[in-house]
Amino acid sequence: MGDHGESAALLAGLSGALTASGHRLMARVYYADTDFSGVVYHARYLEFLERGRSDYLRLTGVHHTELADGKHGEKIVWVVRRMEIDFRSPARIDDILTVDTRTQEISGARIFMAQQLKRGEEVLVEAKVEAAIIGENGRPRRFPREWVAAFMPKSPTSAG
Amino acid sequence: MGDHGESAALLAGLSGALTASGHRLMARVYYADTDFSGVVYHARYLEFLERGRSDYLRLTGVHHTELADGKHGEKIVWVVRRMEIDFRSPARIDDILTVDTRTQEISGARIFMAQQLKRGEEVLVEAKVEAAIIGENGRPRRFPREWVAAFMPKSPTSAG
Amino acid sequence: MGDHGESAALLAGLSGALTASGHRLMARVYYADTDFSGVVYHARYLEFLERGRSDYLRLTGVHHTELADGKHGEKIVWVVRRMEIDFRSPARIDDILTVDTRTQEISGARIFMAQQLKRGEEVLVEAKVEAAIIGENGRPRRFPREWVAAFMPKSPTSAG
Amino acid sequence: MGDHGESAALLAGLSGALTASGHRLMARVYYADTDFSGVVYHARYLEFLERGRSDYLRLTGVHHTELADGKHGEKIVWVVRRMEIDFRSPARIDDILTVDTRTQEISGARIFMAQQLKRGEEVLVEAKVEAAIIGENGRPRRFPREWVAAFMPKSPTSAG
Repeated sequence: MGDHGESAALLAGLSGALTASGHRLMARVYYADTDFSGVVYHARYLEFLERGRSDYLRLTGVHHTELADGKHGEKIVWVVRRMEIDFRSPARIDDILTVDTRTQEISGARIFMAQQLKRGEEVLVEAKVEAAIIGENGRPRRFPREWVAAFMPKSPTSAG
Repeated sequence: MGDHGESAALLAGLSGALTASGHRLMARVYYADTDFSGVVYHARYLEFLERGRSDYLRLTGVHHTELADGKHGEKIVWVVRRMEIDFRSPARIDDILTVDTRTQEISGARIFMAQQLKRGEEVLVEAKVEAAIIGENGRPRRFPREWVAAFMPKSPTSAG
Repeated sequence: MGDHGESAALLAGLSGALTASGHRLMARVYYADTDFSGVVYHARYLEFLERGRSDYLRLTGVHHTELADGKHGEKIVWVVRRMEIDFRSPARIDDILTVDTRTQEISGARIFMAQQLKRGEEVLVEAKVEAAIIGENGRPRRFPREWVAAFMPKSPTSAG
Repeated sequence: MGDHGESAALLAGLSGALTASGHRLMARVYYADTDFSGVVYHARYLEFLERGRSDYLRLTGVHHTELADGKHGEKIVWVVRRMEIDFRSPARIDDILTVDTRTQEISGARIFMAQQLKRGEEVLVEAKVEAAIIGENGRPRRFPREWVAAFMPKSPTSAG
């Protein structure tokens, strides 16, 4: 194993892509995501949402490891402050989910994101996420100005 | 191994207990619940909350296996429809969490529950959960009258 | 959102690819996979391994949903019977892991697979997995002849 | 809520108990532990096993937080090096599992533990676990002499 061309193809969608309104990632539902009711366990949807947010950060140049390594003067971690989640319709094993993430607002030390999990065009889960970055003292930090620019969509768009 | 008296002690708090306002369970934070930021991963709090709701059902006489086995005329599963979650303060490894659950309202085919995760008296996570029961056709079912009685607190209480 | 060309790129590596010796998938490490020690939680490696096996099945034409739907005469599920796992070196957040899976042997109702999780060329986790398929009565079933052909590597190769 | 006598009962079995041959913990199977095949997802058994090992450490006086806080001269974390796991029979939702853990051998920087997950007297999962403690430099450390005494069973016993 180990053909490099092959690896390039395998890596293609791994971090998703920036879109006009934010970020899009596609991800598969596996055994591990389901529960005995036959569909995805409700808390596992939050992991798909986290992947979308993490890859959105990644593609805008913000890496968790760099944050934790103190590149910004001190160790910084992201924390989720609040979520509102509507579980509209269940995802099932083998499904391919689209994770759409966009920033709604950045206000001082808080960022508000809107996320959707979709199967094709059908919205399965919709979430509003309020997050913050905190420093070593556990206190929220203001978002650096360049991040605000990176996370805010270029133009007002309606779709999620 | 296998002393029965010993086992009784080990089983003591396993399903929590019914309280004046609902249900209380205590649970430990393990490695599996944490993430690299050093505290509990946000989606894992939802598992603690699920344990509280499941054991609340259990102690009121509603068992997931019986529901799934069709004791009520058809296979029934619980589904979470919506959650609002405030992550106020992080839980850490080795912490003992208190999971308090109470029913706020039952309305036709929907139940609204309020839950708190606490460490001692400190509220770490607060959640509002809207759930429903659905039958084999995927449609919501009304809650049986005896369940409404079982889930609604005996008296109006203020604490969570 | 919703450009179709874009979606094609995002889907590219989603199920990995069949290789000369078996199957290869690439996957990212997220917050959810880590624990407070700073690296991936040991049980989460098993989820990456499951993804590799599930996608290997998928690309050879075996779908969990079809199995469960009774396409083969009755409901069939895969069960893991035994695992030997060497956790050699830790994976970290943001890492891209390669999941290599190959079949070592199929013997009646059992399949033996060898799997590796790698970061670049470094082997982080090595696993031997014995699995079986069971029918509705809970008893193991022999693997259909066409599956044996699909799962066994075309030629004897040494690499994992 | 908040009666102290009630809390004592709820806390009773929370860390399990030391036994003649090691440690025993009882734990419930919830929705989160299961997958769409209807039984516990194989990787989740490892979380039950981790709880057993963590509480065994706890009751012998070893706390993860203290280890991580550098009480022993530097930050120490436990790492699992190798597991052999036999998944004999599935656990189901609502099941109460017994997690039995005993030390087989401590050799320099490695500890070998044998674990069983049981439902009643039936052994569902059997595991051999090789673990180590590593310091800040990522290198294994020898087990302190007092730990060796704490982890080794008082008398040779046969049961798990």
